[in-house]
Amino acid sequence: MSELTLPAAAQDLLFREARTANTFTAEPVTDEQVQAVYDLVKYAPTAFNQSPLRVVLIRSTDARERIVDLMAEGNRPKTSAAPLVAVLAADNEFHEELPALLPHFPQAKDLFFADRLVREESALINATLQAAYFILGVRAAGLAAGPMTGFDFPGVQKEFLDDDHTPLMVVNIGRPGPDAWFPRSPRLAYDQVVSVA
Amino acid sequence: MSELTLPAAAQDLLFREARTANTFTAEPVTDEQVQAVYDLVKYAPTAFNQSPLRVVLIRSTDARERIVDLMAEGNRPKTSAAPLVAVLAADNEFHEELPALLPHFPQAKDLFFADRLVREESALINATLQAAYFILGVRAAGLAAGPMTGFDFPGVQKEFLDDDHTPLMVVNIGRPGPDAWFPRSPRLAYDQVVSVA
Repeated sequence: MSELTLPAAAQDLLFREARTANTFTAEPVTDEQVQAVYDLVKYAPTAFNQSPLRVVLIRSTDARERIVDLMAEGNRPKTSAAPLVAVLAADNEFHEELPALLPHFPQAKDLFFADRLVREESALINATLQAAYFILGVRAAGLAAGPMTGFDFPGVQKEFLDDDHTPLMVVNIGRPGPDAWFPRSPRLAYDQVVSVA
Repeated sequence: MSELTLPAAAQDLLFREARTANTFTAEPVTDEQVQAVYDLVKYAPTAFNQSPLRVVLIRSTDARERIVDLMAEGNRPKTSAAPLVAVLAADNEFHEELPALLPHFPQAKDLFFADRLVREESALINATLQAAYFILGVRAAGLAAGPMTGFDFPGVQKEFLDDDHTPLMVVNIGRPGPDAWFPRSPRLAYDQVVSVA
């Protein structure tokens, strides 16, 4: 008997058959698809509902050329070829939205997040949680997500983000093309990861 | 027409109807359920397949008492009541497993992760991605996950983790009980989060 409620086909879509694609078809990724992904993953939890993830979609030819130049050399061909490239970032000034996001506890903005270093740490962790939700959300749209951290972080910050935003990763998005996958690498066994106290 | 491939019931299970539970039924969460969750979420991506997430399940009465004492006061009642409590942590020595995890690129261990500070940063980010996958995996098992960061981090480190592991969050797991939810807080609009370059 399966221990999971999620149907097997959905398990495959999100986890088992979804892979980090290295080639893509030419089929565009529409703004409607990105909006559907966001409208799904926005509900997943963050601390204090702080929701610090910000996303920049690279749509213009000029922006595409600039981001490809900022990628590590090994990442350039796939970032050139992907139908859509997204920069995921953390908003270090997320606390400005907190009274609207947490209406039953408006003091949280000043009680917990008055200090810039505390905010940066919290934004990093919680935007990273949201980046993971976003990757699975892209897969929920039937698309492959190729997250990458091999790029010039200060360069991407300066070229594409507000001063108060910190880049987390660049994600290639699209339908997988021919020979899109490397062989699956091994995973740790359950007993290497989970222990009991 | 829906822009998403994932069926609506699965969208509800993972994102829309799943919530951070504040009460639980008495139904136990079995090791088989946790293993099924792990065997699903282990496939989701991390950089260099580094897989730094480690999980400690709080099973003994003694361990439960100790972790409840280490939680912020507002979190104690739910951590007392949850059928299962899990400590999620980052393994800062994940690079020891890297040659097995990345057999086509065994040099990654020394090329990228020889420096302890680089490893800690990478472990934090990638274990946080995996924590998000784990939360959604718990939901895939039909259970509620209540992630919390309101606890004594050095205390949890000392009481429950190896020296090289850093705590990320404590998660209450179980079937939601009566009045399990607060009203849903608002989320940011698409245009507040996504911009175009």
